[in-house]
Amino acid sequence: MPRNQQILLDNRPQGEATTGNFKLVATDTPALADGQVLVRHHYLSLDPYMRGRMNESKSYAASQPLGEVMIGGTAGEVVESRNAKYAVGDKVVGMGGWQEWSVVDGNAPGMLRKVDTAHVPLSHYLGAVGMPGVTAWYGLVKIIAPKAGETVVVSAATGAVGSAFAALAKARGCRVVGIAGGKEKCRYATEELGFDVCIDHREHGDLKAMSKALKEACPDGIDGYFENVGGYILDAVLLRANAFARVAVCGMIAGYDGQPLPLQNPALILVNRMKVEGFIVSEHMEIWPEALKELGTLVGTGKLRPRETIAQGLAAAPEAFLGLLKGKNFGKQLVKLVD
Amino acid sequence: MPRNQQILLDNRPQGEATTGNFKLVATDTPALADGQVLVRHHYLSLDPYMRGRMNESKSYAASQPLGEVMIGGTAGEVVESRNAKYAVGDKVVGMGGWQEWSVVDGNAPGMLRKVDTAHVPLSHYLGAVGMPGVTAWYGLVKIIAPKAGETVVVSAATGAVGSAFAALAKARGCRVVGIAGGKEKCRYATEELGFDVCIDHREHGDLKAMSKALKEACPDGIDGYFENVGGYILDAVLLRANAFARVAVCGMIAGYDGQPLPLQNPALILVNRMKVEGFIVSEHMEIWPEALKELGTLVGTGKLRPRETIAQGLAAAPEAFLGLLKGKNFGKQLVKLVD
Repeated sequence: MPRNQQILLDNRPQGEATTGNFKLVATDTPALADGQVLVRHHYLSLDPYMRGRMNESKSYAASQPLGEVMIGGTAGEVVESRNAKYAVGDKVVGMGGWQEWSVVDGNAPGMLRKVDTAHVPLSHYLGAVGMPGVTAWYGLVKIIAPKAGETVVVSAATGAVGSAFAALAKARGCRVVGIAGGKEKCRYATEELGFDVCIDHREHGDLKAMSKALKEACPDGIDGYFENVGGYILDAVLLRANAFARVAVCGMIAGYDGQPLPLQNPALILVNRMKVEGFIVSEHMEIWPEALKELGTLVGTGKLRPRETIAQGLAAAPEAFLGLLKGKNFGKQLVKLVD
Repeated sequence: MPRNQQILLDNRPQGEATTGNFKLVATDTPALADGQVLVRHHYLSLDPYMRGRMNESKSYAASQPLGEVMIGGTAGEVVESRNAKYAVGDKVVGMGGWQEWSVVDGNAPGMLRKVDTAHVPLSHYLGAVGMPGVTAWYGLVKIIAPKAGETVVVSAATGAVGSAFAALAKARGCRVVGIAGGKEKCRYATEELGFDVCIDHREHGDLKAMSKALKEACPDGIDGYFENVGGYILDAVLLRANAFARVAVCGMIAGYDGQPLPLQNPALILVNRMKVEGFIVSEHMEIWPEALKELGTLVGTGKLRPRETIAQGLAAAPEAFLGLLKGKNFGKQLVKLVD
């Protein structure tokens, strides 16, 4: 059996996460039991939610246990199978974690999903046609539920979730405004992702400036907001929200390191008669087929052309992950695990 | 025509509202035109939302114009009619404002509603079987939507909204926990209003104490919260909220004077996958008939026995209103305008 490299969570961050929180180890891949398949991971997905899992404190999902392989989505190929449902060569996505290989029970529901790579590249099943895309779909369709002509805003606009959000919202006839960090990302958002306007938060780094920028970008106010970051951007959105605006709370990356992140004026939820709703997409598996079908079509027809930032080799994962938390990536952050 | 006393908003509060913001004047009641009716107000309703209207700043409803009669719900009797739909002696509720008499266009939809005082005393149509009761109904039924056995919490528990909330929630098989100010109110809440537990916020005056009290009062966590006050109580509720908890935001009386009222940890909305929704009951007229029917039955059958605090005479209204904002009233605050 092949030698497997793994990255474990070695210790928990004190404030900001560092590479010292992780540990690279090598182990043998166990022999397969009946029903199991051996998957060689081609790509590891890096996503902001992982930062929350690194904390001991109550988060929106179970804490990542110390000394175990970091959780994570993976896309790869079946290289050995003792399960009739999977053949060698099948392309599959699963939650293999930060390692090069995984042994999976092919009969356990939801552990492994065969994917078609004829029209959609394998890596996109970790992004636009995977969990991040479905996340955008749920927040937009099930919480914001926009009408044509409404204005919707998304933070972390050029990431995997934000770029899918833009394509889905444009398909519904919305005005779509993004918030991203840096001129280059903003240009990419408007030129390639279909955003009507993109606001550079580096140039609008406080409540007053962001509120002003949102006023210009959203002359008819804000009807829906997809929240990935928290902090002053959410405060600014509330100041520009229309009556009956909806906020889908997907992430608050600005607070993951433990710093206090208050909402300055929650009374605006009442003033604007808003709905603010948090969600985790894995708790809504019933919508995945419908969402994946729309996302696959958007990618297949070229209406959603997600960009990827790809780190090479498992050892590069911690550094790439820390970069993701700082917004250094461009589009979906992946680690390629094969040459 | 009778001489009419009125209270106008004379100037806007700087911080806390005072009696000096109001002005008592006397005018003649105009003669009736075709279609109009003259109503003698028996009761004026005092409600927390009025404080928001006194501010110039954007509130959840139009600002009260200076120099005009303060807005307010009234219950009274038709004393003269030039409208075939209304006869002298009809008991009616409307939005007559802070004055003794009003002339109403009987044909304008929603301006006046005839009520039956055989089973429900007239004054209750301004409380349990009126706007406050329907407010409780909407927040509980349409936003919190509790299942039997769930735990729901309401602040300002012994007020007109809170007491109706308790009866409605008990009728749905919920554990109902109130938060009120003072031992006497808490005793009234559990002994007469049906609350399972009532927490005295005067004895739990900060986040830590309130959070601890809520933990004891809600051993299975909090599934629904009806928000009337804001501030540290909302922070404490979020710390004790279950996954998928719902918060109906009806008022944030703690912030009406303009002081900042941040929400300390909005990330809990995500952690708990909560829904936080603001509403104004007058924007949901479609539910009033159903809500009023249930509330009328609860009062008629003695399952909801609302208490009232009644000030005598229009000139007493400002003082009574300021007392309401400080929680000095017990149950529904009214002003009686007839001897």
